[in-house]
Amino acid sequence: MCELLGLSANVPTDICFSFSTLMQRGGRTGPHKDGWGISIYEGRGARSFHDPRPSVASEVAELIRRHAIKSKIIVSHIRRANRGRVCLENTHPFSRELWGRSWVFAHNGQLRGVKRYPLGAYRTIGSTDSEHAFCWLLSRIRERFPDKPADARALWKFIAALADELATLGTFNMLLSDATHLYAYCNTHLHWLTRRAPFGPARSIDTGELVDFQDFTTPHDIVTLVASRPLTDNELWHAMSPHRLTVWRAGLAVAGVAGGRVET
Amino acid sequence: MCELLGLSANVPTDICFSFSTLMQRGGRTGPHKDGWGISIYEGRGARSFHDPRPSVASEVAELIRRHAIKSKIIVSHIRRANRGRVCLENTHPFSRELWGRSWVFAHNGQLRGVKRYPLGAYRTIGSTDSEHAFCWLLSRIRERFPDKPADARALWKFIAALADELATLGTFNMLLSDATHLYAYCNTHLHWLTRRAPFGPARSIDTGELVDFQDFTTPHDIVTLVASRPLTDNELWHAMSPHRLTVWRAGLAVAGVAGGRVET
Repeated sequence: MCELLGLSANVPTDICFSFSTLMQRGGRTGPHKDGWGISIYEGRGARSFHDPRPSVASEVAELIRRHAIKSKIIVSHIRRANRGRVCLENTHPFSRELWGRSWVFAHNGQLRGVKRYPLGAYRTIGSTDSEHAFCWLLSRIRERFPDKPADARALWKFIAALADELATLGTFNMLLSDATHLYAYCNTHLHWLTRRAPFGPARSIDTGELVDFQDFTTPHDIVTLVASRPLTDNELWHAMSPHRLTVWRAGLAVAGVAGGRVET
Repeated sequence: MCELLGLSANVPTDICFSFSTLMQRGGRTGPHKDGWGISIYEGRGARSFHDPRPSVASEVAELIRRHAIKSKIIVSHIRRANRGRVCLENTHPFSRELWGRSWVFAHNGQLRGVKRYPLGAYRTIGSTDSEHAFCWLLSRIRERFPDKPADARALWKFIAALADELATLGTFNMLLSDATHLYAYCNTHLHWLTRRAPFGPARSIDTGELVDFQDFTTPHDIVTLVASRPLTDNELWHAMSPHRLTVWRAGLAVAGVAGGRVET
């Protein structure tokens, strides 16, 4: 299994503190030693860093940790390989272009038989179930919406239905972004937390490191984190409901979709 | 204008020495201070690093320089912005998936009116002429060859024809890769050099740094570099002929295409 970490914020925010915690789980406090990746949006594009080596030993991970690259949307993943060999091609997040935007995808879980799902415009480069699921999902979105739909709710409902279908094949916890929204689909476990004023201290579960976000924020900042497991032990993390897609924009949940119904 | 650097080799090879020279041209010995990028293939995928800041000041560039990531195909670019603002979205190399492979593209030159060329399956994320040219080129390849053609020569000829067409719009020096071949199209200036046994010393034009490749190679290694301008002053760089596409595989030129004729 793997661990996911996502960020949605209304101001460019660095993810160093959370990323440091996650990185520890890549071979030190966790078993996720088969690579890691992070996609950091800038505009409609995303800068991605991938490394098939354990995150805890990665020089690139260290660089990202040290040099805080700020963004309003970040998707990260550390991998414990279950299907597909350990190599760059199989390292999440995966990305493809749709509607002139980079879409980025990371997955936790296994999907039995997903490779029988026919692909459309997007094909897999590596051999993972996860990338196949992403290519199928994005192919379906593209078939249904050749152009970006004016009605965002129709898109959100469609993404949730596709995620529900994938979840029938096994375990499907997902982070997805279209450069504006962060989508999180919870199948078995995903947690979220929104930090906003008054900001206070946070303590990393894995490193014990303490940071006071009051020192780094303005009263207007809104920062939401989504993670497989809570990253701090002194803040209130919310467990997401299974089979629910939550849509964040600029740090705020703008919609939830469950059972075919969109709640905004 | 920008500078291009490509590598094709029969063994995973690092590009540190050449990259160091190129990086100097990003703000120190050259005017190419508007970002840089490098795509390093591993299998059918490529790891890309982009930075909209000058390469000479970039921590990421320094990391790549220090930690030799080895590959059989590398495409790199440093940018002097002429069209399109300085931002991540506009930073080469650009990449898209076709036939389950990452295709990577970098361009030197300007193309007047290229944005009137209709795009197909691929759309631009940023605002450069270069990315538009790439999306057009890859859309056309995909229309003509929905699947990877058995006849590689037909593909090479088609790519050369598309490049010839783009070159009518201005200046079009290009590096392109499909994860197996490195394609270089020379419109005005591109140079190449093949290093093979007996290996000897090379001296960087920009840094004066001297390296003896005999210390880092085996007698079977074949390494070809393609660059806008020669990178060393004690080796014989070949100027490529204008309006010619050269195709390298594993360090060897496997074909040249000019005037609609493929020479192998």
